[in-house]
Amino acid sequence: MSSVTPPRGYKKEDIEKRRKWLQEKTGFCIDQVGPDEPEDLKGIIESLTGFMNVPMAIAGPLLINGTYAKGEFFIPLCTLEGTLVMSMTRGLFLTHLSGGIKTTHIKQEMSRSPIFIFDDIDKSYSFLKWVDDNYEKLKKIADSTTKHGRLLRIDKYPSQNSVILDFVYDTEEAAGQNMVTIATFEACKFIKEQFKHEKGFKYFIECNFNGDKNPASRNLILGRAHHVVASALVKENHLRRLLRTTAKEYAEGWSQCMRGTQMAGVLGYNMHNANALAAIYLATGQDVACVSENSVGIMSFEVRNEVDLYATLTMPSISVGTIGGGTRLKQAKKNLELLQCTGKNSSKKFAEIICACALALELSLGGAILTDEFATSHAKYGRK
Amino acid sequence: MSSVTPPRGYKKEDIEKRRKWLQEKTGFCIDQVGPDEPEDLKGIIESLTGFMNVPMAIAGPLLINGTYAKGEFFIPLCTLEGTLVMSMTRGLFLTHLSGGIKTTHIKQEMSRSPIFIFDDIDKSYSFLKWVDDNYEKLKKIADSTTKHGRLLRIDKYPSQNSVILDFVYDTEEAAGQNMVTIATFEACKFIKEQFKHEKGFKYFIECNFNGDKNPASRNLILGRAHHVVASALVKENHLRRLLRTTAKEYAEGWSQCMRGTQMAGVLGYNMHNANALAAIYLATGQDVACVSENSVGIMSFEVRNEVDLYATLTMPSISVGTIGGGTRLKQAKKNLELLQCTGKNSSKKFAEIICACALALELSLGGAILTDEFATSHAKYGRK
Amino acid sequence: MSSVTPPRGYKKEDIEKRRKWLQEKTGFCIDQVGPDEPEDLKGIIESLTGFMNVPMAIAGPLLINGTYAKGEFFIPLCTLEGTLVMSMTRGLFLTHLSGGIKTTHIKQEMSRSPIFIFDDIDKSYSFLKWVDDNYEKLKKIADSTTKHGRLLRIDKYPSQNSVILDFVYDTEEAAGQNMVTIATFEACKFIKEQFKHEKGFKYFIECNFNGDKNPASRNLILGRAHHVVASALVKENHLRRLLRTTAKEYAEGWSQCMRGTQMAGVLGYNMHNANALAAIYLATGQDVACVSENSVGIMSFEVRNEVDLYATLTMPSISVGTIGGGTRLKQAKKNLELLQCTGKNSSKKFAEIICACALALELSLGGAILTDEFATSHAKYGRK
Amino acid sequence: MSSVTPPRGYKKEDIEKRRKWLQEKTGFCIDQVGPDEPEDLKGIIESLTGFMNVPMAIAGPLLINGTYAKGEFFIPLCTLEGTLVMSMTRGLFLTHLSGGIKTTHIKQEMSRSPIFIFDDIDKSYSFLKWVDDNYEKLKKIADSTTKHGRLLRIDKYPSQNSVILDFVYDTEEAAGQNMVTIATFEACKFIKEQFKHEKGFKYFIECNFNGDKNPASRNLILGRAHHVVASALVKENHLRRLLRTTAKEYAEGWSQCMRGTQMAGVLGYNMHNANALAAIYLATGQDVACVSENSVGIMSFEVRNEVDLYATLTMPSISVGTIGGGTRLKQAKKNLELLQCTGKNSSKKFAEIICACALALELSLGGAILTDEFATSHAKYGRK
Repeated sequence: MSSVTPPRGYKKEDIEKRRKWLQEKTGFCIDQVGPDEPEDLKGIIESLTGFMNVPMAIAGPLLINGTYAKGEFFIPLCTLEGTLVMSMTRGLFLTHLSGGIKTTHIKQEMSRSPIFIFDDIDKSYSFLKWVDDNYEKLKKIADSTTKHGRLLRIDKYPSQNSVILDFVYDTEEAAGQNMVTIATFEACKFIKEQFKHEKGFKYFIECNFNGDKNPASRNLILGRAHHVVASALVKENHLRRLLRTTAKEYAEGWSQCMRGTQMAGVLGYNMHNANALAAIYLATGQDVACVSENSVGIMSFEVRNEVDLYATLTMPSISVGTIGGGTRLKQAKKNLELLQCTGKNSSKKFAEIICACALALELSLGGAILTDEFATSHAKYGRK
Repeated sequence: MSSVTPPRGYKKEDIEKRRKWLQEKTGFCIDQVGPDEPEDLKGIIESLTGFMNVPMAIAGPLLINGTYAKGEFFIPLCTLEGTLVMSMTRGLFLTHLSGGIKTTHIKQEMSRSPIFIFDDIDKSYSFLKWVDDNYEKLKKIADSTTKHGRLLRIDKYPSQNSVILDFVYDTEEAAGQNMVTIATFEACKFIKEQFKHEKGFKYFIECNFNGDKNPASRNLILGRAHHVVASALVKENHLRRLLRTTAKEYAEGWSQCMRGTQMAGVLGYNMHNANALAAIYLATGQDVACVSENSVGIMSFEVRNEVDLYATLTMPSISVGTIGGGTRLKQAKKNLELLQCTGKNSSKKFAEIICACALALELSLGGAILTDEFATSHAKYGRK
Repeated sequence: MSSVTPPRGYKKEDIEKRRKWLQEKTGFCIDQVGPDEPEDLKGIIESLTGFMNVPMAIAGPLLINGTYAKGEFFIPLCTLEGTLVMSMTRGLFLTHLSGGIKTTHIKQEMSRSPIFIFDDIDKSYSFLKWVDDNYEKLKKIADSTTKHGRLLRIDKYPSQNSVILDFVYDTEEAAGQNMVTIATFEACKFIKEQFKHEKGFKYFIECNFNGDKNPASRNLILGRAHHVVASALVKENHLRRLLRTTAKEYAEGWSQCMRGTQMAGVLGYNMHNANALAAIYLATGQDVACVSENSVGIMSFEVRNEVDLYATLTMPSISVGTIGGGTRLKQAKKNLELLQCTGKNSSKKFAEIICACALALELSLGGAILTDEFATSHAKYGRK
Repeated sequence: MSSVTPPRGYKKEDIEKRRKWLQEKTGFCIDQVGPDEPEDLKGIIESLTGFMNVPMAIAGPLLINGTYAKGEFFIPLCTLEGTLVMSMTRGLFLTHLSGGIKTTHIKQEMSRSPIFIFDDIDKSYSFLKWVDDNYEKLKKIADSTTKHGRLLRIDKYPSQNSVILDFVYDTEEAAGQNMVTIATFEACKFIKEQFKHEKGFKYFIECNFNGDKNPASRNLILGRAHHVVASALVKENHLRRLLRTTAKEYAEGWSQCMRGTQMAGVLGYNMHNANALAAIYLATGQDVACVSENSVGIMSFEVRNEVDLYATLTMPSISVGTIGGGTRLKQAKKNLELLQCTGKNSSKKFAEIICACALALELSLGGAILTDEFATSHAKYGRK
């Protein structure tokens, strides 16, 4: 008799068992194979049964002048929304003609925020001091768990009879969510050891303060993971030719057409950052669920030199890496190579490329809405 | 000489041209093929160049008793986050033992929100009345653009010297973002025709009020797309055995471990809805960028019968469909068939399954955090 | 021996008792009298012991052309923030020179939002229909409790195993928080009677969905109490003379100097609506605690006719009345008379005046910040 | 002929002129006098014309054990909402019986957030470093403007082509909004001097990042002004007698009856902090407009010892002072003396008292809602 839940295991024969199990249960047969060996997918997925083929396109070239990313890049995109690739290409081409996109990498800070609960507010208050006094010890423990990351600081947020500690790390080339979990966990074990006999003491490894997989003001304000700013100065003639508008029309129109943002209680101030993120994340083995947390950037436009359009995009939270996790997928690795995002500082470079592409997409989509081509282009390219 | 931007076209030979073009530009060779014919991907992606293989697993079975979804379901999941599939399976198994998950489909309302700008607040005020007076005409125009959707109502939000009209539709089995764009566009053309000679009149098809691809309070309050509520009553013995905790510990712990939510300005009140959404969306041809907008549910736990745990999850915005868009991908179609989500009311059924799976995942992850197994399980299953 | 808590009672001698009691307890003597008889303060305050004298100024004149407010008005203001009165007067004068401020009264909807809890999501779902079926009965009961208010509709928001009912009323000249409490309470008693034997049924008269005394996106989106829009077209020469700036500088500067708004997770989009509200509320017997809820307006500026400045302010939630509550204070009544806000539609007129004054204050303060006179004027007028 | 705007001046005869002016304009005569000399009100209000008498009550006694506030206190309250004083007294009595309220003063940080705009994101990035390099100089300049305040640090928030600097101060006994404006202004003058020749450089003294007079996530997360936590352990018998409920009913009921909070996009998590703040602020010469910014606390309840109720309230932003501003009003000064809030650390002590009173009020109001006495008590005490 077959088991209730799927048979476990990471080997090829385990996959076959699961496929057979599913067929028995449902009559449904899965048979797609992928380039990756099942054994290689440990740590990425359990109960692997097959593969999903997501169509991939190339947009670009992006011309960028950033802190780490410099030159021309061709962007692999996986999406199911017709017009997206074309629109990003339009934005990239438009900025390319105007000298490219500038980016600045502000910082990279992945964090994990355990909460420590005491039976009394006095004790939680004393704990604040205890953490300061024991910072070096905690740092040593946390840092000992990883070769690549290092604890930058512990921010302290008292709340009720508890204290949230925000462990903030540099995670180098890794996105680092697992890295900071494990490092913080070890530090917490030490803390727990000190306080476990205190009446009412409890701790939880995460209290949702980080906005991990959640849209949060905290991340808009303080940033989480890579914090990047991008800008582009779009010249009048290109704007007119490619977007059929002027800088003045664009800047004014944008401020009017975004009025719903303020009213609807939207976190951040952009139209479709999520689209650029999801498409690049999918093509490069990033965790697409992070889009919920990472899409909160601020886009702005102003007129320069009377006739040019100056576009800037702040993205305070881009949770990407170039090693570990899904980047181990063969195709993801290849695409990261295509983006020349390997080696030292490659995650920073990658985050800059992402922010630049999001700016290009926003610029193009904004244009489509302002000139009322949004619906017609979706009617043409968004349907069979 | 090769063109600056990728060669266009939906045919097989166009793909070859693009691959060649990319190789010339970068030396980088893309060669993966997928089960879908390039021509079939029109409307889904432009500049198709290859495919990305995303690993797929099966979780379940989910036992559900919903408005539309009834029985056992096996859930296809695409993810790159180790532990996710195992954790959802644990949650599904736990609820299965306890009699399954109940769901209620509250409503399905996809919307598009154009903004109409006047030079004077008097005119925008008069416009409110004009819309009421012309509602039937506008509905006729909008409805004429589609066989599947129908306008339910137009909500009116005055703001400054403008009015946001929220066109709310039933889009049946389609997610419907394109459908409502095109229908609203035609209605707007009529409005534009009436007012185009008014001084200062302008309109934009979208003003971000809808929270399309954005996290927004509006969607938490009013809902967008499918609005579903799920619940499960987990029995004491199963809770103890599978999650190693009690209902009292769980409910109290949850309220403490979620304190960061209130402080960080998180939209909604859950830990990882985004994870369940992204994994199912990927496997079924949904638009994963919508995760940014759809992840804002509210999770709650309470003790029942002194010892059992009652879990409820409200998801007011699940933007999914079972026809159109990415559901045309062969594998997506197959996975929707596996979920028995085809035909009439299948999108509602699908939304219920999604909400139930999100509840199961949240239940399991909550347990892992409360019993401090979160880090150890990620150390074990989230790494190579 | 004196009692632990203050002696009760609304009569003059009760005040004396309390004063004596306080003196015994603390040695501290309160002796200020006010124009109001203690007996007249029943319903406004318990344990009256004295009066606080808040300085009052007159700003204006406001020139307004609204739906209800038309002509010139002199505005009584109570504040303790130096520069506020002068600044509002500057804004009022500036708009007066430019033809005054236009206002539109959009709607008046005070609400109360009880929550009804069921042991099962099916039952809460059925309850939605029950409410529709029994609407007329509920309306009759609610309306029977008041001569001045009437129920406009009941909005239904399902959440978890419960349903929030938003009872929305027209409360005419009253701010109406008490009116809607009592009316809703009676309707709830009827509901409770029907469901009290249902297992697990519970209800609470308020679930904080209304944002009563709280800043809430709900009120920005849906409005609560008076919803007013104000606008002014400020002519170039006046702008230059009084604010020492140009329309272009102002509009551009504003959009830059408000960048923190988007980042800090501010609800609404204005600088100091709270100041205008608090100062007018205090002078007219309104509940100043409502400032927390009412301050969430949206301010915007644009250039018109190349050189003029067009300012608009949307305030979706102004909880004021011209009868009942603190308006019974003699001085409050007098000030409402000064504002000619008595009789039919006077609360709407009053709300328009408030919105216009808030616009004028914002306009002036914005000017001070843009021209860097903010600090110097506060140094001069904000200190002894 | 009388002037258009009110005649200026702080002297007694100026008041007479204004009264005459108003009478000419409107026929309306203002004649109330107050205990304060007009000349003494310079810096508090311009165009003083009279006084508003706000009824004042005494609630209490509060029994408190805080970092600074210790012992029994009698609380002066000015309100126009019937039931408020009685309700707070009930909460204070209830906590008094149970051993009083504990408070912890976490920190006091008033801030001002100017924004510095550059024509290029590179320059804004370099500016971050410049600020660090010149911190000591900036601190010296800022500190030189005040005897009472001192700059604690400058936090840096890059956004678009600009940088927000958050100047964070200890303002000792003053609320300090003016103090930090003037200190920051001088520091900004120095910065301006260095960068004024840079192309496109602009600066504004405030960019709304601080949430000054605005509800903001920033203040919930980072705190502004006094940050206080209060707690009380209410014993079973007192809870039963005074609130007619049990700890279990209370804690469970609260979590259900606050469901609207999560859904409505409310900032913070409390019912009526605004009421406690407004009433105490009015009685003590504080700026009531700050209620909009200060009301965002987080309230929580849990069961302790199986039967007792543990209540905690975090208020991260209480903008009060015991010197300067409106505290110069004679009655305000007296009331601060009644509260023994004078001298060193008195503003911290005062903030603790406020937080404790807010907890007591919330505790009592929560009880009224949970036992369905909210409407009946308002019907009895909230009406004439």
